[in-house]
Amino acid sequence: MLHAIATVSLSGTLPEKLEAAASARFDGVEIFEADLLYFGGSPEDVRQLAADLGLEIMLFQPFRDFEAVPRDRLQRNLDRAEHKFDLMEELGVRTLLLCSNVAPDTIQDDAVAIEDLARLAERAARRGIKIGYEALAWGRHVRTWKHAWRIVDTVAQPNLGLILDSFHTLALGDDTREIATMVPGDRIVFVQIADAPRLEMDVLSWSRHFRCFPGQGEFDVAGFLAPVLAAGYGGPLSLEVFNDDFRAAPARQTAVDAMRSLLYLEERTRERLAPPASDKVAFSTPPVDLFAAPPPSPSMSFGFVEFAVDEAAMARLAAWLERLGFAAAGRHRSKNVTLFRQGGVNLALNAEGESFAQAYFLVHGPSACAVGLEVENASQVLNRARLYRCQPYEGRIGPNEFLIPAVRAPDGSLVYLVDRSQIAPVLYEREFALASGGGANPAGLSRIDHISLAVPDGQFDSWVLFFKAVLGFEAESVFDLPDPYGLVRSRAVRSPDGSVRFPLNISQSRNTATARSVSAYSGAGVQHIALATADIFAAAAELKRRGAAVLRIPANYYDDLAAKFGLEQEFVDRLAAANILYDRDAGGGEFFQLYTEPFEDRFAFELVERRHGYDGFGAANAPVRLAAQAQMQAGSRFRTLAALT
Amino acid sequence: MLHAIATVSLSGTLPEKLEAAASARFDGVEIFEADLLYFGGSPEDVRQLAADLGLEIMLFQPFRDFEAVPRDRLQRNLDRAEHKFDLMEELGVRTLLLCSNVAPDTIQDDAVAIEDLARLAERAARRGIKIGYEALAWGRHVRTWKHAWRIVDTVAQPNLGLILDSFHTLALGDDTREIATMVPGDRIVFVQIADAPRLEMDVLSWSRHFRCFPGQGEFDVAGFLAPVLAAGYGGPLSLEVFNDDFRAAPARQTAVDAMRSLLYLEERTRERLAPPASDKVAFSTPPVDLFAAPPPSPSMSFGFVEFAVDEAAMARLAAWLERLGFAAAGRHRSKNVTLFRQGGVNLALNAEGESFAQAYFLVHGPSACAVGLEVENASQVLNRARLYRCQPYEGRIGPNEFLIPAVRAPDGSLVYLVDRSQIAPVLYEREFALASGGGANPAGLSRIDHISLAVPDGQFDSWVLFFKAVLGFEAESVFDLPDPYGLVRSRAVRSPDGSVRFPLNISQSRNTATARSVSAYSGAGVQHIALATADIFAAAAELKRRGAAVLRIPANYYDDLAAKFGLEQEFVDRLAAANILYDRDAGGGEFFQLYTEPFEDRFAFELVERRHGYDGFGAANAPVRLAAQAQMQAGSRFRTLAALT
Repeated sequence: MLHAIATVSLSGTLPEKLEAAASARFDGVEIFEADLLYFGGSPEDVRQLAADLGLEIMLFQPFRDFEAVPRDRLQRNLDRAEHKFDLMEELGVRTLLLCSNVAPDTIQDDAVAIEDLARLAERAARRGIKIGYEALAWGRHVRTWKHAWRIVDTVAQPNLGLILDSFHTLALGDDTREIATMVPGDRIVFVQIADAPRLEMDVLSWSRHFRCFPGQGEFDVAGFLAPVLAAGYGGPLSLEVFNDDFRAAPARQTAVDAMRSLLYLEERTRERLAPPASDKVAFSTPPVDLFAAPPPSPSMSFGFVEFAVDEAAMARLAAWLERLGFAAAGRHRSKNVTLFRQGGVNLALNAEGESFAQAYFLVHGPSACAVGLEVENASQVLNRARLYRCQPYEGRIGPNEFLIPAVRAPDGSLVYLVDRSQIAPVLYEREFALASGGGANPAGLSRIDHISLAVPDGQFDSWVLFFKAVLGFEAESVFDLPDPYGLVRSRAVRSPDGSVRFPLNISQSRNTATARSVSAYSGAGVQHIALATADIFAAAAELKRRGAAVLRIPANYYDDLAAKFGLEQEFVDRLAAANILYDRDAGGGEFFQLYTEPFEDRFAFELVERRHGYDGFGAANAPVRLAAQAQMQAGSRFRTLAALT
Repeated sequence: MLHAIATVSLSGTLPEKLEAAASARFDGVEIFEADLLYFGGSPEDVRQLAADLGLEIMLFQPFRDFEAVPRDRLQRNLDRAEHKFDLMEELGVRTLLLCSNVAPDTIQDDAVAIEDLARLAERAARRGIKIGYEALAWGRHVRTWKHAWRIVDTVAQPNLGLILDSFHTLALGDDTREIATMVPGDRIVFVQIADAPRLEMDVLSWSRHFRCFPGQGEFDVAGFLAPVLAAGYGGPLSLEVFNDDFRAAPARQTAVDAMRSLLYLEERTRERLAPPASDKVAFSTPPVDLFAAPPPSPSMSFGFVEFAVDEAAMARLAAWLERLGFAAAGRHRSKNVTLFRQGGVNLALNAEGESFAQAYFLVHGPSACAVGLEVENASQVLNRARLYRCQPYEGRIGPNEFLIPAVRAPDGSLVYLVDRSQIAPVLYEREFALASGGGANPAGLSRIDHISLAVPDGQFDSWVLFFKAVLGFEAESVFDLPDPYGLVRSRAVRSPDGSVRFPLNISQSRNTATARSVSAYSGAGVQHIALATADIFAAAAELKRRGAAVLRIPANYYDDLAAKFGLEQEFVDRLAAANILYDRDAGGGEFFQLYTEPFEDRFAFELVERRHGYDGFGAANAPVRLAAQAQMQAGSRFRTLAALT
């Protein structure tokens, strides 16, 4: 399909918007009139600029409050239309978006609207212009596509058609299924696409501030699009997204996300158009080609985490890891990389010069610079990522080493794709000179349970889309976690089989631990790594024996816990003695968490034990944990606050 | 009245919250249970800390989902209550807030709730504890104070009373007028206060994220409180405010605003309790003392603006001002200050060593450091400000100079209070050696029309309250202004007579001109100063003659303007030639604006002409102006964006 984006979806001046759209390989743009008004050049300049960038100007918008006005204003509205037609001619665009009238004095009578639209279409026809009529969800009289279609259909002029917008349709809880049978595809002039989170607020504010790209919100946009394509629509898909974060974000990053979201939408829509299954409405095959990519890996697991260090940081991190029961398992055969292992957890400390890790270290300091995911058919996953416009990465490899494909995550860190059957079983033996007698597992760790990332404010949606589209993850619900110095918003993404999970955390306040992580990393970064153990009490005892510092949890928490769950006092005392957090879900699943002290104020580890199918991350414990982490820093915080006030 | 604040209203750890409340002179606090849970010390530690700070712990909260649960859970709930009572004993607090049950399985039968509350009250009585029952706006069965009161009244136990909360009441559109006659004042156990902006969203999210202090929102909180006092309530007023900005702000600043807001509420409530006027409901005089302060100055005008400069900046700013038609009118008799004048506009450039201006210059660079407001009875206004907890400021004065009282604005800049009859008429003559032959007015300026301030994100409410409470201003509606690099939120405050106005602008994005102003000033700062002229075309011609650079407005804007208002082409051409922005209101009022180039990327001047009573600030023109300002910087912006992506 052809891909377009409305200039209003991108930040900056009009030339910046056009350049961003072109660099993300869009076919065309909708010019939002305000962007033209505010531009210093003429409409012809815009036409030329778009042409130079290989962009077609596909739509001009909006033309507002035209139809069914009190009769004394009709002539002025027709004059306004001619003025727009003049502008459009200069811009070289042939399609105008007319949105349904929102004025309180709109005449609520279809016959009047039909008469007005007929006159407008007639005039437009003389200028070779096509009009698309769109029902706004907050229109005064016309709010649904079906109502707009009745009017358009009655006017019955070939240059007047329908414009559909997924936001307006889905925000009302309306759907488009009947379009497949009711509207000839060639009467749909243009299709605008936006997703949104489900919010209980007035639809106008919702639309103006909270729209997002498909895959980032909660609307069934594929369910909207499938019948539109089944109706025979073959025109462009165009993103029209009003979003406060996007207004503030660099246009190029937004444009890349925008393109990725349309590809994702096409892939999801293709599933909807597949041959009928019992529980799905099926449509005939559409006349357009839809984006296809190899499927994501259906199962997945954490393979390793790589840390960027220099010699000094390697020594400090090694000492920190040893207190947690890790041991150096071997040195890389050709690079300055040391593998630390415990049970099924592999951590590579990379201090190799001239490497990706070194470059990462120079920018971000000691930090996790790559995650290795074990996947089925790595090359297929890499191809998928490439089709989704990811930057692949290839490192230097030595003799006999594997070329492990990798892609860049939105923060520039790497996700290695370790082929589960080909590479994973022999990776460490081949690449590292493993010490004999390894395999000790004093803290009883089985694997990485999840990795929490601190993400800069405004980049949440970008990360969610990366995981969903590129890796086929699902996004979980959003939680608000109260840090003592501001609210942190958390949303986890999980692999198709649920075994790889990344909670993403953002903080609007600059004073929370999450915000400090973001600023310590100068970007997104790993905030903590959760390691699974089958016996957290034994693990805690081992950490204590080794002198590892753990996060102290206030006694009041345990008093409350006993009352909340009706726990035996002896059990609560054991939890309290080891500073273990506890949660229980409705199904009787139990969760135990123990946080280590942070490594140099950058990241911490968490030990977790899950019993009876507990599936969450202990959100109920997040406030006490965040408060305890803040209190650990209270000395320095007090000074900061004193300076601020 | 006694003043309290819930710990949840303040950021930080529990000791930080308590210290902030004490330093703002609160009498007591409500301890929010979560704050206790997350605290590292014991309840006794909290009791001791509060006592050391002179704070009474007035309320413990919340106790949730107690009444009318399915019968098999009642015993457990009673056990939970005993556990809270234990905690309260350790804390030394005698009153517990019980909020109405929100659980879906609540038994919707008053008789059950009455029976449960009777049992609870009985147990509480044995422990010497008082229970306050509060209707949550989203309670399952009980949502209004009247419903809660029916239950409490039926239980009829002396240690069970009502807790009122202005948010829960006003969010539902409910009012409290009948309380004055229906509820004996001594059955009201506690009163919680919060304001909020009017938002169309679900009431739970509204309550959890958007509450604010009285005077900062749009609720009629005084209308809520007056009948409560008339009923005879004499207990504390306690702020319970859940607000995302406050969670992220320094607790001490929030606490000072909190106290100021309660004083403001008392002052407004006193007006409501005054002897009956025809259009007001009157109540008998309450048994409590309400805060009183001298009234604000009923009329007011801009006197002068003072700029902090050094010698070099003074020379550059002087040259910039001269291009705008200003001339040096005289030198201060004892200080290194030069007065620039044009028509009725006075600008003082202060480069005096060891002065407030010099200290300001060192922190903020060349900037407006003080505004002089001419007021009736300056000493009365100063007293009002002091009572509202403002910091007064007194500078060094020379022989024969006036001591002009001043208070600090929230950013640390000064507001001078120039007595209109005593000082204003002779101020400049007395303090400055005025050059003879002054008084030229080439650009035809009459006065300062308004001053726009860029305010850091999260400090909006603090500024609004300062102007409203201290100076008696009113706040206008909030506008969203689309800067090309993010949304800017603007809200103007105006003096009682409307002649002194400050639009306040905040930007959540870090990339807008507003955000850059905030960061250039390292805090809030003057973004532009609007000067009134009676002939903007003549003024524009004069600026051109003098070589002053003005902001270029795109031609497309004028094309659209002609169509929008049906203007004569000749008139539009004149506007375009001079880069004058135009707006017209519904009543035929007209507005003309011309922006200068900025002085060193810090502030600009704006010339405005108002015709036929136009009262706004040209919000319709803000987008094109912001885009033009951004385009002026497009070169550097492009580089920044390239670095980001």
